[in-house]
Amino acid sequence: MRLIIGNKKYSGWSLRAWLFARYFNIPFEEIRLPIYTSAFDEQIPTYSPAGKVPVLHDNDCIIWDSLAICEYLNEVHLAGKGLPSDIYARAQARAISAEMHSGFAELRKELPLNCAYDKGAVSINPLAKRDVQRICEIWRTYRTLYGQQGNFLFGDFSLADAMYAPVAIRFHIYEIPLATTERAYLNTLLALPAMQEWIQAGRAETDVLPSEER
Amino acid sequence: MRLIIGNKKYSGWSLRAWLFARYFNIPFEEIRLPIYTSAFDEQIPTYSPAGKVPVLHDNDCIIWDSLAICEYLNEVHLAGKGLPSDIYARAQARAISAEMHSGFAELRKELPLNCAYDKGAVSINPLAKRDVQRICEIWRTYRTLYGQQGNFLFGDFSLADAMYAPVAIRFHIYEIPLATTERAYLNTLLALPAMQEWIQAGRAETDVLPSEER
Ligand SMILES: N[C@@H](CCC(=O)N[C@@H](CS)C(=O)NCC(=O)O)C(=O)O
Ligand SMILES: N[C@@H](CCC(=O)N[C@@H](CS)C(=O)NCC(=O)O)C(=O)O
Repeated sequence: MRLIIGNKKYSGWSLRAWLFARYFNIPFEEIRLPIYTSAFDEQIPTYSPAGKVPVLHDNDCIIWDSLAICEYLNEVHLAGKGLPSDIYARAQARAISAEMHSGFAELRKELPLNCAYDKGAVSINPLAKRDVQRICEIWRTYRTLYGQQGNFLFGDFSLADAMYAPVAIRFHIYEIPLATTERAYLNTLLALPAMQEWIQAGRAETDVLPSEER
Repeated sequence: MRLIIGNKKYSGWSLRAWLFARYFNIPFEEIRLPIYTSAFDEQIPTYSPAGKVPVLHDNDCIIWDSLAICEYLNEVHLAGKGLPSDIYARAQARAISAEMHSGFAELRKELPLNCAYDKGAVSINPLAKRDVQRICEIWRTYRTLYGQQGNFLFGDFSLADAMYAPVAIRFHIYEIPLATTERAYLNTLLALPAMQEWIQAGRAETDVLPSEER
């Protein structure tokens, strides 16, 4: 199995699929294509009909998009343990995953993912602030509901945590103020060995994309 | 079960979830909130923590986002028959559904959904054209692969068809030129009784939102 990803420094969508596979120790070969370069534009069509990373190649099966990749890995390699087993919790996990998948555009724009950012707090516009508040509300809601069952949003690590992992890096590097519950959850995500591995690799990358630097 | 939707004239995301439920004859009560109005802003928080339509209420379970709603209905009410049974086809169906869920922003902007639009062809920018081409490529690919098995993208009607249904209305009202395979698929979607029911209801709505009129 091969997972094609973007720069670890910048590519949050790649991180979601990568972290999901890595957390569950699903073995894969990693191919890195630096986004927004001519090399990317040349090579990506040979890997994905949608022209984006992440994309997974499993034998003859080509699956693109972080959400579809995680659903596939969950079914084929995890026998379902990548999503909550309770149907109601599973529906909620998918709802917040889909909300992340299609939303929070202002937050993405105002707080670009950059593992190597070290300038600290920044001011953000009211729309991005609303995104931050909604994410905090989500984290608080599920950590409160499922806190007894483990340290992740739905107790055990799931697709939902993978979807919110890049936000944890954003909140950390831009020093977003957080209440206790949200802070504890953020620390849980950042302390994952797989997250540390990704962040360190991202910091070691020397590419600089002006569009992704704040 | 209650499905909260937006205007039928304008709300493509609502159509996706509504069509999926209706095609499979899953009974539900429908609540319509006209989007981008103060009534919407007042009422939507009582229905959805994410503040958007569609949102599904099934007993105590609140599920928002078209994709998560369809996945839920598929699991709970359809015993999986809302997605292809073959794991590879299912992964592809989820990939193109996710691609629609987070993509094609230019197409959406240039060709706003409007069931009552009757002005015909319009000129669109190159980025929206690229979106049109990619959608045609998707339709052609899966209609060619699964054409023997039925009239929908993966043979039988699935989540993927629900996700692309609003595009069929867009292509129809703006008279987008299509090759034979794509045209036949578009006609299949438009001829569905549930689609006709939605479109007629949309045409009968009297709301006018300047932002959604081209
Ligand atoms: N919805 C997609 C989004 C993927 C995406 O936007 N990837 C970016 C990198 S983070 C990309 O490939 N950009 C390159 C390009 O669009 O040319 C997913 O969830 O996988
Ligand atoms: N990703 C969501 C998108 C939902 C969405 O954007 N809905 C629009 C109507 S089509 C809406 O509720 N807009 C009202 C608002 O944002 O205030 C889904 O797939 O359900």
